[in-house]
Amino acid sequence: MPDARRYHRLPSPFLMKRGGELHSADLAYETWGTLSPHADNAVLVLPGLSPSAHAASNRHDPSDGWWEAIIGPGKAIDTGRWFVICINSLGSCKGSTGPASNNPDSGKPYGIEFPELTLEDAANANQCLLDALGIKRLACLVGCSMGGMTALAQMLLHPGCTRAHISISTAPQAQPFAIAIRSLQREAIRLDPNWNDGDYDEAHYPEAGMRIARKLGVITYRSALEWSGRFSRIRLDSGAREGDPFAAEFAVESYLEAHARRFVRTYDPNSYLYLSRASDWFDVAEYGDGSVADGLRRIHIEDALVIGVETDILFPIEQQKAVADGLAASGARVRFEALDSPQGHDAFLVDTERFGAAIRAFLDTLPRTDSIGSCVVPLPQHHEN
Amino acid sequence: MPDARRYHRLPSPFLMKRGGELHSADLAYETWGTLSPHADNAVLVLPGLSPSAHAASNRHDPSDGWWEAIIGPGKAIDTGRWFVICINSLGSCKGSTGPASNNPDSGKPYGIEFPELTLEDAANANQCLLDALGIKRLACLVGCSMGGMTALAQMLLHPGCTRAHISISTAPQAQPFAIAIRSLQREAIRLDPNWNDGDYDEAHYPEAGMRIARKLGVITYRSALEWSGRFSRIRLDSGAREGDPFAAEFAVESYLEAHARRFVRTYDPNSYLYLSRASDWFDVAEYGDGSVADGLRRIHIEDALVIGVETDILFPIEQQKAVADGLAASGARVRFEALDSPQGHDAFLVDTERFGAAIRAFLDTLPRTDSIGSCVVPLPQHHEN
Repeated sequence: MPDARRYHRLPSPFLMKRGGELHSADLAYETWGTLSPHADNAVLVLPGLSPSAHAASNRHDPSDGWWEAIIGPGKAIDTGRWFVICINSLGSCKGSTGPASNNPDSGKPYGIEFPELTLEDAANANQCLLDALGIKRLACLVGCSMGGMTALAQMLLHPGCTRAHISISTAPQAQPFAIAIRSLQREAIRLDPNWNDGDYDEAHYPEAGMRIARKLGVITYRSALEWSGRFSRIRLDSGAREGDPFAAEFAVESYLEAHARRFVRTYDPNSYLYLSRASDWFDVAEYGDGSVADGLRRIHIEDALVIGVETDILFPIEQQKAVADGLAASGARVRFEALDSPQGHDAFLVDTERFGAAIRAFLDTLPRTDSIGSCVVPLPQHHEN
Repeated sequence: MPDARRYHRLPSPFLMKRGGELHSADLAYETWGTLSPHADNAVLVLPGLSPSAHAASNRHDPSDGWWEAIIGPGKAIDTGRWFVICINSLGSCKGSTGPASNNPDSGKPYGIEFPELTLEDAANANQCLLDALGIKRLACLVGCSMGGMTALAQMLLHPGCTRAHISISTAPQAQPFAIAIRSLQREAIRLDPNWNDGDYDEAHYPEAGMRIARKLGVITYRSALEWSGRFSRIRLDSGAREGDPFAAEFAVESYLEAHARRFVRTYDPNSYLYLSRASDWFDVAEYGDGSVADGLRRIHIEDALVIGVETDILFPIEQQKAVADGLAASGARVRFEALDSPQGHDAFLVDTERFGAAIRAFLDTLPRTDSIGSCVVPLPQHHEN
């Protein structure tokens, strides 16, 4: 299978916020476009919980990426102008070191021996990569959903790391509704006997728990409004039910089923647990005098675009507004876009027309950097982890 | 334990909408107040999915009922004026015949051999009880949540069964978001190995599945707004976690846990499955030309109060508005109250101040019936089922 991932070896030991440390840990990432001679045209994209670093097709991997409609030549994030990097979060399972990786001390997967993970650890790891690439200041740091929280952490922990910021459908702190949903997803996984305290394998995989976790995710990623229009009370062919009153009967049930089927066994359950809990823990208020507003005021950037969606129940629009207000209070020029996409939290992955237009318009306002051309920064060699 | 339940034996066989039949089935109910000589002061209250017929304390059972603040002498539903009946739905497990009841043919619990259940069956059973009590026309039929759907079915199937109607936080048809939530709750129960195709006992009870189903219920019964104000990011005493990063840490997690603990093992999982699916199936549109509006126009009553809550994500306010509009189109005098209670779908159980005021004001407008006094209708004898 084609693979465009590059790997950056983190400093060893890599110290974690809550006390643990990692040895010989890697960060997986992909890039598009060319870094300018002054390394001032870099755009770092941080995905949500589940996507990999493959945000768009590229030379090494022509398959569509998770943000194919947004990233590419002439697209909203124009790879003719920008050097785009997408990082698979530390703790994930798409190439970066996480609970499914082998613990070099034991030679076996970490499982729940993986140290407690925070989004701050992910942010610090991202910064290590930027340092290695010689990028002193990003032109723009883009964070979507969980990646938006990591982006906030990165700007708080590494002042000056970026000139501009795009915050998409994220939260400055986890609120109880989101914590409740994630807690229940974790419970479903942990109650699955196959989870076995994090010690499972392909033959004994907590599939039932992951199915429920994913379906609950999908329910909260979309919106009731979209589903009423899309599925209404459409029924499936009744033949399949064969007298079982609890078998899938409505279109919305088979939709959830299809989502679960695509996800289960492609994502490591322990990674899910760790990143889910890290999201609960994240709180910008810890960086200020205890309020989100004060925490956000500690971020110093020049321009920001904050995009949210009215139908998002997981990261409600009020939280996007709080991010916009907080960044504005710190002196940034802030655009706030409350889009009326019906797709809820997932809109940034689906309604790429509205999101693309907002991102393109914002990036067009950023100052031109030096021209791209002859000088190509030497990228670290590919190595397999 | 004190027990105020009475039981009404349904006609045997009791024919079900989707084809099955029940033999020697019972309906459990409780009453408050005194039926007037002309039997024209009866108010029938239909609860949501989980509560029993014990809506309020009474002579036989002085413990608080689930609507204690609303029903009683001088309260919003004034038992000094009204003869109040509350029925435990057919298919439930609080005294009425349901999947946990013994099948008289086998002498063993029905389990999933219970016939497919619809809310129309529950409505027909309710009507049998009213007939037995000599109540030709209710003064008011009150339905809450699932009970609100059963009430709509009862008015469609038994025209003239009530003079007035109070519809509370219900839906004229299940929409895909609600179907998705309920489908996932059912999946959690059915994936629990202890569910065992509906054949379990106390020693092998699908506790894990019921915990998840209940927690998901609680999440959708309340609102993000309420929880942000109530729990914020309050943490539990850290001692209990003992280094387990996935143990309950936030107040909202222990709140869910407490709810699950109170519910699990007090409710029959098969009953939950049957009533949940019956709710998915319910659709007023089937009674009209295919639209909800047309279905509702077939209901002929004189007065209606429709109450919904802006923060209800399970039965959104637009659905309450549709009920109000449909009843108005059929010629009823309709009051529509969109309350701004923060408690979401559960508000009718919690914000009894707002709900009580609306209900009291509406009932005060209903015409006085004949005076209550000497004639007490003979109620069926208590018998245990």
